[in-house]
Amino acid sequence: MTLSNPAAPSASPAATAEPITFLTYGEAMALFVADTPGDLARVERFTRRVAGADLNVATGLARLGFRVGYLSRVGGDAFGRMIVDALAAEGIDTRHVSIDDRWPTGFQLKARATGGADPSVESFRRGSAASHLSVADFDAAYADEATHLHLTGVAPAISASSLELAHRLAAHFLAAGKTVSFDPNLRPALWPSTEVMVDKVNALAALATWVLPGLAEGRILTGASDPEGIAAFYLARGVRGVVVKLGVEGAYYASADGERGYVAAVPVAEVIDTVGAGDGFAVGVVSALHEGFSLARASARGALIGALAVQVIGDSEGLPSRAQLARLEASAASGLAVRAAIGDPHVAP
Amino acid sequence: MTLSNPAAPSASPAATAEPITFLTYGEAMALFVADTPGDLARVERFTRRVAGADLNVATGLARLGFRVGYLSRVGGDAFGRMIVDALAAEGIDTRHVSIDDRWPTGFQLKARATGGADPSVESFRRGSAASHLSVADFDAAYADEATHLHLTGVAPAISASSLELAHRLAAHFLAAGKTVSFDPNLRPALWPSTEVMVDKVNALAALATWVLPGLAEGRILTGASDPEGIAAFYLARGVRGVVVKLGVEGAYYASADGERGYVAAVPVAEVIDTVGAGDGFAVGVVSALHEGFSLARASARGALIGALAVQVIGDSEGLPSRAQLARLEASAASGLAVRAAIGDPHVAP
Repeated sequence: MTLSNPAAPSASPAATAEPITFLTYGEAMALFVADTPGDLARVERFTRRVAGADLNVATGLARLGFRVGYLSRVGGDAFGRMIVDALAAEGIDTRHVSIDDRWPTGFQLKARATGGADPSVESFRRGSAASHLSVADFDAAYADEATHLHLTGVAPAISASSLELAHRLAAHFLAAGKTVSFDPNLRPALWPSTEVMVDKVNALAALATWVLPGLAEGRILTGASDPEGIAAFYLARGVRGVVVKLGVEGAYYASADGERGYVAAVPVAEVIDTVGAGDGFAVGVVSALHEGFSLARASARGALIGALAVQVIGDSEGLPSRAQLARLEASAASGLAVRAAIGDPHVAP
Repeated sequence: MTLSNPAAPSASPAATAEPITFLTYGEAMALFVADTPGDLARVERFTRRVAGADLNVATGLARLGFRVGYLSRVGGDAFGRMIVDALAAEGIDTRHVSIDDRWPTGFQLKARATGGADPSVESFRRGSAASHLSVADFDAAYADEATHLHLTGVAPAISASSLELAHRLAAHFLAAGKTVSFDPNLRPALWPSTEVMVDKVNALAALATWVLPGLAEGRILTGASDPEGIAAFYLARGVRGVVVKLGVEGAYYASADGERGYVAAVPVAEVIDTVGAGDGFAVGVVSALHEGFSLARASARGALIGALAVQVIGDSEGLPSRAQLARLEASAASGLAVRAAIGDPHVAP
């Protein structure tokens, strides 16, 4: 048997584990971040972390105190052990993280960015253990524990079997009357063509309750040029709410109920690394909507956590605890008031 | 076109490059060496180097002033660019290092060893660019520049097409009346079974002029238990000379001409990392034989360079320049005299 679950032999059998609230699935990778700027081929010292858009969202939700389940496979290697340890350290439920000895764990190299530019990232994930995720990894009882599913467009892009798993998960949550959030996280290099990517990603997005595209992504996916047009595209396909991320311009939100508007970006003193900003944004939006807040309020929390993520080197280390978030939301509220007073046209009412 | 040669567009066209003396082929990998001891899954900081048994030998021969050709493929990624840069920095001829965009460059993790133990190494090389090496990479005109071919048992193990290339290279050198050295470098994890490994590695060894097994390798490959029996096995198959590496016990050598004996290991104050010792040994033996020295003298140089390799963290950074080697051989000669005087039974006459 080459598939095993690291949690299985533990003293806490699955039957007695605390049920999860959120379920995410995807590919966690080892991440080597360059210690110095410059061409990755010339950097000699690296710091090892973990990477994965879905993993970042799981981490952010877990830090806010939610019980989060992560469904994945890792290889039977040092990277796989490291990832399972990292998940456990964040309090993420690893009952459905399998160790698959047949394939390696994927990994990434990330350059040290300078001046707020997007850092160069190279992925080594083809044929990884996670790329062999399939509907065989689906467990209805586990999915039934959760009230919400978060999907990204990354894991469905790594293989046809993983895409099938994404659809199975989304269909299961929808059939149960539960909510699904979807962040396109476009990775053109993982798809055979732009046409296939747009087709497959939009098919998944149409299943979601909430869709969270970036502006550039939305333009590629919908053909619309402005946030309003992008949101309208998904609302017309039955999505309940759309939040379009606008980078330093903040975000635009629109719901099927007619709620719409802009929230401002949260100013940051220095952008260290932009990777993970969108994942932090998703953490804010999904957690706030789960807590019953409006789409406007959820978008503001997304902008707040996204701003934290760009101020650190790692992809997830800027994600706040519940206490940190509470303090930040309190101070951001007064900050927004000031911005509104000076007439920033993007500040939501 | 996905295959390209980084040297092709340079100002020094292949036709006017200085001819090579030695040819090696194989797989160069990125190597991440842990900065701190312990389980690789828990180490956070790594230093990036290059790895590869054949690459280490090429590096060692180049440092001794020889013109060395390295035949390989790397991926179109940061690791591949890094390797080409590293080869060029060592003065190794890269005219036949192709960049193959279709596959990634392989890489390794290496733990920080303590107390002279062999460090834990994990390889991520399956499906790598180099594993797609084949007879299509063979270039008779390039091979004809060289007077000697060094083969290891690693590259022939990474794929059937690479094994076929190894045979093509060896046959070409033998047909031209040139010499071939072979270091088994057994990698059981890369072979489907021990039986297949023994069969394939011995088939290559039988083609070689000089075979350089370690004692444990020789026992697996020949069934003999002592160095004499291991050497006799290969001499009976037509090999001209065998040097069996005995670790801290030095080495045993035997030639078809009847030359045989032991050389002592060179004492080292502290063993830092044992990886690369055998490659350093090969550099010493091959360079000395090429220079016309006896098998005894060549084995002594092998022991000397092998000892240098274990005193550094990297796989190849202990390999000496020609000037360093000359100084070391001079002082080792006096050291050997002292050891002979005190009756060390392993010192060659």
